Amino acid sequence: MDEVISLEECLQTLALEARELYLRDSVPVLDTEPSPLQFYKDFVSSNAPFIIRNCVSHWPALSKWNYKYLKEKLGDQSVSVAVTPNGYADAIHDGFFVMPEERQMKMGDFLDTLSSEPVSKAVFYLQKQNSNLTTELSCLVDDVDEHISWATEALGKLPDAVNFWLGDKRAVTSMHKDHYENLYCVISGEKHFTLLPPTETYFVPYGDFPAAVYKENSEGDFDIIPQPDIGTVPWVTVDPLSPNLKKNPEFAQARPIKCTLRAGDLLYLPSLWFHHVHQSHGCIAVNYWYDMEFDIKYNYFKFTESIGDICRYHHNEKRGRKKKETD
Amino acid sequence: MDEVISLEECLQTLALEARELYLRDSVPVLDTEPSPLQFYKDFVSSNAPFIIRNCVSHWPALSKWNYKYLKEKLGDQSVSVAVTPNGYADAIHDGFFVMPEERQMKMGDFLDTLSSEPVSKAVFYLQKQNSNLTTELSCLVDDVDEHISWATEALGKLPDAVNFWLGDKRAVTSMHKDHYENLYCVISGEKHFTLLPPTETYFVPYGDFPAAVYKENSEGDFDIIPQPDIGTVPWVTVDPLSPNLKKNPEFAQARPIKCTLRAGDLLYLPSLWFHHVHQSHGCIAVNYWYDMEFDIKYNYFKFTESIGDICRYHHNEKRGRKKKETD
Repeated sequence: MDEVISLEECLQTLALEARELYLRDSVPVLDTEPSPLQFYKDFVSSNAPFIIRNCVSHWPALSKWNYKYLKEKLGDQSVSVAVTPNGYADAIHDGFFVMPEERQMKMGDFLDTLSSEPVSKAVFYLQKQNSNLTTELSCLVDDVDEHISWATEALGKLPDAVNFWLGDKRAVTSMHKDHYENLYCVISGEKHFTLLPPTETYFVPYGDFPAAVYKENSEGDFDIIPQPDIGTVPWVTVDPLSPNLKKNPEFAQARPIKCTLRAGDLLYLPSLWFHHVHQSHGCIAVNYWYDMEFDIKYNYFKFTESIGDICRYHHNEKRGRKKKETD
Repeated sequence: MDEVISLEECLQTLALEARELYLRDSVPVLDTEPSPLQFYKDFVSSNAPFIIRNCVSHWPALSKWNYKYLKEKLGDQSVSVAVTPNGYADAIHDGFFVMPEERQMKMGDFLDTLSSEPVSKAVFYLQKQNSNLTTELSCLVDDVDEHISWATEALGKLPDAVNFWLGDKRAVTSMHKDHYENLYCVISGEKHFTLLPPTETYFVPYGDFPAAVYKENSEGDFDIIPQPDIGTVPWVTVDPLSPNLKKNPEFAQARPIKCTLRAGDLLYLPSLWFHHVHQSHGCIAVNYWYDMEFDIKYNYFKFTESIGDICRYHHNEKRGRKKKETD
């Protein structure tokens, strides 16, 4: 019995059985909103995503939110915008975990940069996940629902944050997972999701990287400024859209699920699911983050992660031994 | 890094975190019946047990069901009774997994044996789990609820079986687990449960045993008749009330949870929980088995079992090596 192969087989079976028992190869589309019980039972408890097409098409935001309206309502409002040289806020670059430059801008100026030809290499993304819709952009809250009623009833609490997203087509949210039950609604444009369930965590390579932030310099280039106070950050090292399988052979076993949301659509993205997101230019979205329960699923997930760590450790040892023998 | 210790540490952490995150050292007692959503969210989804005292005290069965009433209603009814020499139906004995002698008796005769001084060493237990309340004993169904309404609504289905239990104080249900969500109600007397969550599966030793049945012979002794057609049966090898820790050292890490149900009480015993049960003499109970969902919790449980198998395999190998070195 080869130890590494056996542990790996267990992890592979876990991933495979998830697909056979309660997940599909694509995100199922529901015809109507679920009841609170159905939402909890069939999706939250099973940790399974779904889409409802045109679920929020009746929101005033769908007809009202365009650059002109946002400029009229919010032109002088100061908003926090993530600025990067490549569209990647919170991602690995040059051996660092690089966070965006957080720039306070007038909403009007931000909208102008989005709607005109780029004058610099900078990519702008309004994506601050501190419930920016209810704080910086509170004059927009009447155009959407304050919360998703069936989710609030099922989860027994209001959302912890309601976030507004608007940005450049080059802006990318690199693969990561959140400790939230996430209800994601697109208001205009398109969002493209690449998803992986937590049962495939072993296939998703992580590294520890010293933290840094981007800072645009006077030449319009971006410097990477280390942030030693933050220390190192564990982050996913693979881009699911163009994975380096030589460096990350385990990822070949992952079976990413893709889906696209259009204006009016809602996605339930369950807690601990890995997700990578990109979008059409100027896509506007609103998402609701509800605190997850740290219950048996979370406990089992942490256990699975720790078994994956042991398995990876043995793989690396084996590779080390092989290398030594070859040297 | 010692492989066995590391895997074992992961399994220990899983068990410990379950206690810290969502289980307690005792079974919580609810003041009232939960709503279907609360039942699913706080208990089924978390795989956590609870008790409601006097939950079914209003059932006619509570005042009606005694030997006299049962004899009047059912005296001539043929019922299937488990007969054993020691009270253990479905348990390990002399290297076999021994099932009880299944004896068809008149209900009146069965009640007489229970209420009089024992004339043989045989222990009788009416415990056939084939929904015997709705089949053999259907004239009693009006005295209890057909199903537990909040559970039926939450689980979206009727119970798969409703079982009637009546037996000797020497009758014991040895430790095992079921693929059912179990709602257990005591009508008279007391039931004593010893429970272990599925996150402690590694601590629970199993063995594979050839199947057999008891058969009382003409001298009133019991023979063990092998059942080669059934093959071997995997079964728990430890008695949680007097564990042999020298033979099963892992069980020392288990933290069994005990609880007692009295007339009118209801226990929610979640799927895959190990349970050992004994009772006061003549205790009557009714339980409702609802099919469990084979979802993410089940998947993670099977994964945990398989990691436990690897861990045990290495332990045994190590013991074998040590023994060889000593020889």
